[in-house]
Amino acid sequence: MTYCVGIRLNAGLVFLSDSRTNAGMDHISTYRKMIIYEKTDDRFMVLLSAGNLSISQSVRELLQVEKIDGHEEEGKSGEPITIWNATSMFDAARVLGATVRRVFEQDGRALKQAGIDFNASFIFGGQIKGEAMRMFLVYSAGNFIEATGETCYYQVGESKYGKPILDRVITPATPLNQAAKCALVSMDSTLKSNLSVGLPLDLLVYREGEFSSNDIVCIDDKNPYFKMIHETWGQRLHEVFQGIDDPRWDGGDSAHPMMVRSARYDTMRKITHPGERIV
Amino acid sequence: MTYCVGIRLNAGLVFLSDSRTNAGMDHISTYRKMIIYEKTDDRFMVLLSAGNLSISQSVRELLQVEKIDGHEEEGKSGEPITIWNATSMFDAARVLGATVRRVFEQDGRALKQAGIDFNASFIFGGQIKGEAMRMFLVYSAGNFIEATGETCYYQVGESKYGKPILDRVITPATPLNQAAKCALVSMDSTLKSNLSVGLPLDLLVYREGEFSSNDIVCIDDKNPYFKMIHETWGQRLHEVFQGIDDPRWDGGDSAHPMMVRSARYDTMRKITHPGERIV
Repeated sequence: MTYCVGIRLNAGLVFLSDSRTNAGMDHISTYRKMIIYEKTDDRFMVLLSAGNLSISQSVRELLQVEKIDGHEEEGKSGEPITIWNATSMFDAARVLGATVRRVFEQDGRALKQAGIDFNASFIFGGQIKGEAMRMFLVYSAGNFIEATGETCYYQVGESKYGKPILDRVITPATPLNQAAKCALVSMDSTLKSNLSVGLPLDLLVYREGEFSSNDIVCIDDKNPYFKMIHETWGQRLHEVFQGIDDPRWDGGDSAHPMMVRSARYDTMRKITHPGERIV
Repeated sequence: MTYCVGIRLNAGLVFLSDSRTNAGMDHISTYRKMIIYEKTDDRFMVLLSAGNLSISQSVRELLQVEKIDGHEEEGKSGEPITIWNATSMFDAARVLGATVRRVFEQDGRALKQAGIDFNASFIFGGQIKGEAMRMFLVYSAGNFIEATGETCYYQVGESKYGKPILDRVITPATPLNQAAKCALVSMDSTLKSNLSVGLPLDLLVYREGEFSSNDIVCIDDKNPYFKMIHETWGQRLHEVFQGIDDPRWDGGDSAHPMMVRSARYDTMRKITHPGERIV
């Protein structure tokens, strides 16, 4: 499997991906799932991919050359649109969708005959000059949705383990480095609970309006910051957990009585051995 | 969906279940997923169920009367085994497995014709006099696995959101009330991230050798302890999160430099606009 997360903040974008792929438990490999498309001072786009590796590799390769029909102007169709000349991230996402559909045309039938789902999903975000930053979640049918103020992050792959911390921390106003930290904590929880997600990680932080990024790093198990996150988060979580009162069943003088004894059997379905009284 | 967790500790057993069922987003109901089978001073068993509600309700109903062949003794087959006379939790789990198979015989074909999976799973734990406490995870085929010292908890239903905290806290030596607290934190994370899991909750703590339990409670949104957990956990998590250093991209004088700048592009796949230099 895979775990990737993309976050769209007011201040910029954060992308994080793991690098484990597996076809069964004994065929585990490392493939990077983050790719950057950059045109100096004009556009900066990042693609994270999950799903079938043959599909996502084909999509990544073809995305550089895929064209879609341009917008009609005065009855004439415009110049074909590529990710390199698109004037909006929306159009660039349309090119990505078309690329996914092209790969489906190539491989979909043969995969189906082999009993394999056409399974791929992508987080595609970035900025094109003249426009605000945007981020999209692109499905295997080539359709897509866009991140908004209310829903400002996307996950693909093994997403559930790492979702609670994102839900608790991330808002559009979160500072970039704090969001990067949150993405790493989310990844750490996922790594702990699921073998199919693995190091190294790729982390990229993009600042609004820069059309490039210096904050890109490949994180392996020797990275001092990620090691610190890994150790500190687990330990502090333990401390917080220990610091919260255990339940007091009798209520007693607790500030927050756990349980009101009298109500305990009210609605509980309890079956006693035939012939015994039912409580 | 559903979220249920069962934990087998040295000191006893903890069971926690939510009560939401849904068939689509507009058909949401409350059904209890915990049921207790009790015979005074002889046996105490708890069943948590997830999956198709019609299947799990049938299983719960039939489990009280299901019989399997007894062990052969001196060439004669023994008395049929029920959950009420089984001499081991293993045999009781076999009765449960047989019950699941009986429901499959009744409903499996019709469900398949309707395009519905025979989807059900159960956590079944308890104690029968003369034996240690045991806990089983029973699958929809009626087969089952047993909790051990290494794997001392089971989850069914929407299990991933709440798994990280269990992985970090629970060992067989964890005290009962601490494990109950952990199960509630795990449930709180699940409730926050997934709409298909909902209050009220049923929580039961069983102490080794008692063959009954007084620590049973139905937790709704007014329960002072769960309210405290819900508020405190989220807030403390935030504090811990804020207390961990944000990444410092330049390394600088940080005790745990995030990123070694020089390595940043080493292995990153970056595609620049044709004609531009590749970094």
